[in-house]
Amino acid sequence: MDKIEFKKMAERYNKELLENVLPFWLEKSQDKEYGGYFTCLNRDGSVFDTDKFVWLQGREVWMFSMLYNKFQKNEEWLECAKQGAEFLKKYGYTGNYDFYFSLTREGKPIVQPYNIFSNTFACMAFAQLAEATGSEEYADMAKKIFERILERRNNPKGQWSKGVPGTRPMKDFALPMIICNMALEVEKIIDDKELMDKTIKECLHEVLDVFYQPSLGAMVENVSSVDNSLVDCFEGREINPGHDLEALWFIENLGVRLGDKELVQKAVDISLRVIELGWDKEYGGIFYFLDSKGYPQQKLEWDQKLWWVHLESSIAMLKGYQLTGNEKCLEWFLKLDDYMWKHFKDQEYPEWFGYLNRRGEVLLPLKGGKWKGCFHVPRGLYQIGQMLEDLSK
Amino acid sequence: MDKIEFKKMAERYNKELLENVLPFWLEKSQDKEYGGYFTCLNRDGSVFDTDKFVWLQGREVWMFSMLYNKFQKNEEWLECAKQGAEFLKKYGYTGNYDFYFSLTREGKPIVQPYNIFSNTFACMAFAQLAEATGSEEYADMAKKIFERILERRNNPKGQWSKGVPGTRPMKDFALPMIICNMALEVEKIIDDKELMDKTIKECLHEVLDVFYQPSLGAMVENVSSVDNSLVDCFEGREINPGHDLEALWFIENLGVRLGDKELVQKAVDISLRVIELGWDKEYGGIFYFLDSKGYPQQKLEWDQKLWWVHLESSIAMLKGYQLTGNEKCLEWFLKLDDYMWKHFKDQEYPEWFGYLNRRGEVLLPLKGGKWKGCFHVPRGLYQIGQMLEDLSK
Repeated sequence: MDKIEFKKMAERYNKELLENVLPFWLEKSQDKEYGGYFTCLNRDGSVFDTDKFVWLQGREVWMFSMLYNKFQKNEEWLECAKQGAEFLKKYGYTGNYDFYFSLTREGKPIVQPYNIFSNTFACMAFAQLAEATGSEEYADMAKKIFERILERRNNPKGQWSKGVPGTRPMKDFALPMIICNMALEVEKIIDDKELMDKTIKECLHEVLDVFYQPSLGAMVENVSSVDNSLVDCFEGREINPGHDLEALWFIENLGVRLGDKELVQKAVDISLRVIELGWDKEYGGIFYFLDSKGYPQQKLEWDQKLWWVHLESSIAMLKGYQLTGNEKCLEWFLKLDDYMWKHFKDQEYPEWFGYLNRRGEVLLPLKGGKWKGCFHVPRGLYQIGQMLEDLSK
Repeated sequence: MDKIEFKKMAERYNKELLENVLPFWLEKSQDKEYGGYFTCLNRDGSVFDTDKFVWLQGREVWMFSMLYNKFQKNEEWLECAKQGAEFLKKYGYTGNYDFYFSLTREGKPIVQPYNIFSNTFACMAFAQLAEATGSEEYADMAKKIFERILERRNNPKGQWSKGVPGTRPMKDFALPMIICNMALEVEKIIDDKELMDKTIKECLHEVLDVFYQPSLGAMVENVSSVDNSLVDCFEGREINPGHDLEALWFIENLGVRLGDKELVQKAVDISLRVIELGWDKEYGGIFYFLDSKGYPQQKLEWDQKLWWVHLESSIAMLKGYQLTGNEKCLEWFLKLDDYMWKHFKDQEYPEWFGYLNRRGEVLLPLKGGKWKGCFHVPRGLYQIGQMLEDLSK
């Protein structure tokens, strides 16, 4: 591809972000009465459920703050982020900075803070907003939530764990992966640089040396927390290729940040193995889940094609190309670009579809739900647009 | 249909049960080394995972005991039931008769008894086996488990509940439905007839007057536990047509048992509304989940076609015909019969497939897994075979 083609492509991504996706969320998701965001949105953006899922509240605050910090000083974006953050500050958490999983429209807690990822997204949200506003209060919130995450890290499910202690202790890939991401997000506001370095080092080790299985060419979602060994059960055999590829671009970013070219190269090499494994050779797109031994899976949605998987994989592939010049990465990116715009983009209404069946047909017509909010689509469009612009220069 | 056709059809079901399905479980599922049953079985019956899921341990004990009691005095069946019951007795439960969700092959508990349905299937298992063996010990187990179920009934999830108390208390349809079923199973061993009558009456009221929504023509899976009202959230809008139809044939049985023709008629009328609502007009088969308002669903597997849904629906339809002579019920049964034998029956290996996609293509090639065991296929074949024989006389 030549520079003019990259430029044209960058324009397509930037236009989709600025004229289609961001206006959708600004207009349709904000609850002007109670604050916070609706995320259960029909194809046309109308609200079908008013519950507020905390992952997605935090992610939307983060999204608009990040874009304000890095992309454009758009005051509407900042106001949108602030009102969501105020809602979270008022209703989102318990006395010890654990964030609930969901709230009613008015902010009453529905589901307990059993899920540590509510904390991680809230932490990233307040850290970005602190940077955007210069507010000490938001920075302080982010710090306290970060401390709480480190505290909960070795027993994230706590009292809500269903495992009988001792029989088969496992740990999951999602936590060190998110911490890799969070590390770059909060480093400006965390004073203890030694703690940050240690945390990053530990998480990189976990992802690359513990969860990654060279013999498979992918990470497994769970390993033994006693000796890091593979566990031959449903959870221990589970592979989530989109999850792996998202983690790998976080790691590529960390590699750049640490000036560690070898780390970048390693992540890119792994990413090519993962996408080769995860790609559906029959219908195209990337499977949601695989079993490391090829056994029948526990999760019935295993063969579905999800928006976030494809956006995160596209970022990983284009970043791999940008950082190493590997043409294979570019080929994969172009294949994903073709798949996404053909299947996930809604040609009639704004924002993208989230859930397709194996054949790439729409499974759920929603634009937002319990798990899909203002996050992967705009983050992906933004990152890809930026990288394409860099490549056009 | 004439009597000869019913006879021919009965033979097809009985042969499938006796020559295909039961030999499969006897041969492939029994763990001769540690006792209990493997249930994670590939298409050809080979074991792919040795974990023991307690729902399915209890159900297999029940299945072989029930067939021994009602169908044939086959000693191999009784031995198979007994060895599974001994495994459950030794490893399955905590001091207060709560059954774990899963065990290792050797019997070590993996997942806590967070799920009351492990108790209900264990209770039914020991009650049937007590009848088969005349053992006081098994009868006593069943009684103690039944008491524990009634104790836990109003707070079945206990410490594992993720709901914040007070905000949105809900109760689910599954529990009164199972208790309707269990009532007929345990009545012989429960001395307190008044308690049994009261329990049955309460459960019938719950299913028909609380969960059933005349305006929808189906039950919702969850309602408010404060005032029985509809709750406009994902869980409160969820409909599971197969679940409804299974409950309805339990109720038809209760109607026969109580000599209540009006109850039978009511259940049959509702069943026809449910199947009309749940049937996929495009690809055939019954959807796994629907949303009562037609909104996008939370469960990604909503459009899949599951074995148990179709077997339970077939029982409901044929029973409806047998008890009321309604030809619509027979038409639906024949439509289901055609669908099941075309899509769920494996033409090459024994037992039936469990999980199909919306188009009726095999989604997972397993014959048994975490949720599919020796239960719905043989129970369905047996019940349908018996009803068809009755109809042929």
